Amino acid sequence: MPVATSSNIIIRMDIQKAKISFGEVAVAIGNAGGDIIATDIIHSGQESAIRDITVNVPDHSNTELLKRIRDLNGVKVINVSDRTFLVHLGGKIEMQPKMPIKNREDLSHVYTPGVAKVCKAIHEDSSKAYSLTIKRNTVAVVSDGTAVLGLGDIGPFAAMPVMEGKAMLFKQLAGVDAVPICLDTKDTEEIIRTIKNIAPGFGGINLEDISSPRCFEIEERLKQELDIPVFHDDQHGTAVVVLAGLLNALKIVGKTPETIKVVVAGIGAAGVSCSKMLLAAGVKNLIPVDRQGALVAGESYPNSMWNWLAERSNPYNIKGSLSEVLEGADVFIGVSGPGILKVDDLKKMARDPIVFAMANPEPEIDPESAEPYVRVMASGRSDYPNQINNVLCFPGIFRGALECRASTINEKMKLAAAEAIASVVSTEELNEQYIIPSVFNEDVVKKVRAAVIKAAIETQVARRVPRDFR
Amino acid sequence: MPVATSSNIIIRMDIQKAKISFGEVAVAIGNAGGDIIATDIIHSGQESAIRDITVNVPDHSNTELLKRIRDLNGVKVINVSDRTFLVHLGGKIEMQPKMPIKNREDLSHVYTPGVAKVCKAIHEDSSKAYSLTIKRNTVAVVSDGTAVLGLGDIGPFAAMPVMEGKAMLFKQLAGVDAVPICLDTKDTEEIIRTIKNIAPGFGGINLEDISSPRCFEIEERLKQELDIPVFHDDQHGTAVVVLAGLLNALKIVGKTPETIKVVVAGIGAAGVSCSKMLLAAGVKNLIPVDRQGALVAGESYPNSMWNWLAERSNPYNIKGSLSEVLEGADVFIGVSGPGILKVDDLKKMARDPIVFAMANPEPEIDPESAEPYVRVMASGRSDYPNQINNVLCFPGIFRGALECRASTINEKMKLAAAEAIASVVSTEELNEQYIIPSVFNEDVVKKVRAAVIKAAIETQVARRVPRDFR
Repeated sequence: MPVATSSNIIIRMDIQKAKISFGEVAVAIGNAGGDIIATDIIHSGQESAIRDITVNVPDHSNTELLKRIRDLNGVKVINVSDRTFLVHLGGKIEMQPKMPIKNREDLSHVYTPGVAKVCKAIHEDSSKAYSLTIKRNTVAVVSDGTAVLGLGDIGPFAAMPVMEGKAMLFKQLAGVDAVPICLDTKDTEEIIRTIKNIAPGFGGINLEDISSPRCFEIEERLKQELDIPVFHDDQHGTAVVVLAGLLNALKIVGKTPETIKVVVAGIGAAGVSCSKMLLAAGVKNLIPVDRQGALVAGESYPNSMWNWLAERSNPYNIKGSLSEVLEGADVFIGVSGPGILKVDDLKKMARDPIVFAMANPEPEIDPESAEPYVRVMASGRSDYPNQINNVLCFPGIFRGALECRASTINEKMKLAAAEAIASVVSTEELNEQYIIPSVFNEDVVKKVRAAVIKAAIETQVARRVPRDFR
Repeated sequence: MPVATSSNIIIRMDIQKAKISFGEVAVAIGNAGGDIIATDIIHSGQESAIRDITVNVPDHSNTELLKRIRDLNGVKVINVSDRTFLVHLGGKIEMQPKMPIKNREDLSHVYTPGVAKVCKAIHEDSSKAYSLTIKRNTVAVVSDGTAVLGLGDIGPFAAMPVMEGKAMLFKQLAGVDAVPICLDTKDTEEIIRTIKNIAPGFGGINLEDISSPRCFEIEERLKQELDIPVFHDDQHGTAVVVLAGLLNALKIVGKTPETIKVVVAGIGAAGVSCSKMLLAAGVKNLIPVDRQGALVAGESYPNSMWNWLAERSNPYNIKGSLSEVLEGADVFIGVSGPGILKVDDLKKMARDPIVFAMANPEPEIDPESAEPYVRVMASGRSDYPNQINNVLCFPGIFRGALECRASTINEKMKLAAAEAIASVVSTEELNEQYIIPSVFNEDVVKKVRAAVIKAAIETQVARRVPRDFR
């Protein structure tokens, strides 16, 4: 599929009736390469009319189109917006009462004076917070805005649209209530304290877009100090979905985790977590690579996670650049930067190469150039097959964790989630272009939920057994 | 109106068909004083049926009724719940997407990759957070659970039902999205830091049920250090509604704020705020009284707010007990404890005494005993006329503050809110039993909103002028 190169923009304009007709405006838009999709009259007066005109326009001719419209005599462009901005106006989520308060009787139940006996009941037994408050079904999506998408440290205000989008997905896909919390601090200790302080009302904490290496300590400490699940999605969400895709890709090429050579490029938050996950899934020969080359045991790295990982991977102590260590590799997992993988590198890999090039928005290698040399290709992009998308993981994994009141999300639960996602693609359906289900596949959350609850019960971190597991 | 003395309970019971019929169970419930309102079959098997029976029962015979049912041969009581608990099950609010994500196209607008350009736009101009995120319409309702209703320090878990109830009222009455945040710390500095850290996503902070005197410093510091409104509702909400009621009560007795003698009993958070508000509204002769008697200038009190208040009130330096200083008073404002006001005290007051006895749940004097000796009586209770209820203030005051992007809620805005609430009761309607509108009166939020926006614009704290004020 080609990358989309046109988009819809909405142009609000004031048209002076005496000077120009709407038809003439429409002709001018058409001549400039725009395709009118819809038109609404916002205000119609004696002398002028204000219209919203929705136009599909090739991205490259956007500026030219607007210039031509502005040059028309009798037309004043009031505002130009595109659909993406419009859907964000005023934010994308809202807090809703579950029932209306119709009269004084209702008020006395949900608020004073009746609420006092509910408060007392929780005060006497704090575990009742799970049945009598939103804690049961609510997670905080917390970011400090330091590693947002591919944009980097853009701060807490600018991170909000991503967290709101996540809250939408949590609710629509898994019925989980999510509250975006963007933090006005980058200090590790402050972040930990703040999250601990706000935790009582939440049943789980989804950490998001916090830069490496602070994210490791923040998550680790919170896991130790809180009794609710804490899950850094950029690390573990990605790792779970990568493993899901890899399990299916290996079926296609007839290989097993235990015997393959895997090169992981980019040892940030996601790279570390993917590596840990693959090792937990049985991979023996995994070589982590960052800018300065392969990580090897015995070296002393500034990042403690690198030291940890170097001790547990690269069993043959292979040194060298990415290109060098790719010799004979079965799998390339990229969570690094654009264009670092060359066609010549692919040619050095073992038979039936599997390449996951997940740098965003530009992958490690352009999927079209790679295609002739790889057997299975996946990326982070929605415009190619096999999109590795965290959305496949976080809704279901929290759905399951909340329902069984898990105290944590452990490795077994993550492995179970990966296997569940992989299992949504049946043996009959499985092929090089389809190793991972769509985020809109309704089986994903159902299967992940069930697998996660089962693993939580087996590993004794569940504090409640849902009805369908009794 | 009498205090409600019956309530609905729902009894889930397993009835063995061979041993007893439903009719026999119904007769037993009736004989024990219960009135069956509804019955639902939850599960019906060959030998037994599980039913939910909703019964209205006088509060005093609740225990007796359940004993009689438990004694019936063939009946097993599985669970008893009352309606108040039932409406709290799973919490009372939920986070909802404003639009569904129906397909990949929608996803690309609300989430990746489209959301990146929205993030970038806010990164370039953080004021765009108001148009492109939920900040515009969202407040945090923050409590540390130390002064919840009349229950005291019951902790953050037990405080949640109150904050959720508040969030319901915010949305239903004023369309404001409110997020309950209950804090696992009582430390003043920690609370201030935590609220500052989570502030970016919110357009305002409603502090709630934080004990005195910490609440003063927390609010004052946050007002200085944040550029969004911070409003401790227990202080200012109460003060605004008290002033609203008093303005109307004074109309009835034909007195003015400038000439009356007011005694305020109970100088906690609400008492200090009521006193400040009344002074700001023009009251000259105000005597604050706490357990040890009237506050007088020159004394050194352990609480700095008391010193502040003593310097600015009690102009004639009247000393003495509550009973002593009430001599000749026109108005009694009680935000203290049950029963501290006696009928004999009322007899000492000036003609047409106005008594606001707002201790919760038991007022300073029983309204029925007081009635023969006062002209206008108000309390915090919903089962007597003239309920002084914060719900009249917080939805409208935040509605107004958010719409004009006020940087703070100042004294002028609070005075305007009080006058707006008072104005909802027309001159024709005004009488001793009706000085304050119902919380369900739809004019309240409308008028408060408009008055608050007007005052914010006049005092130059508005950062946006709503359309209807241009």
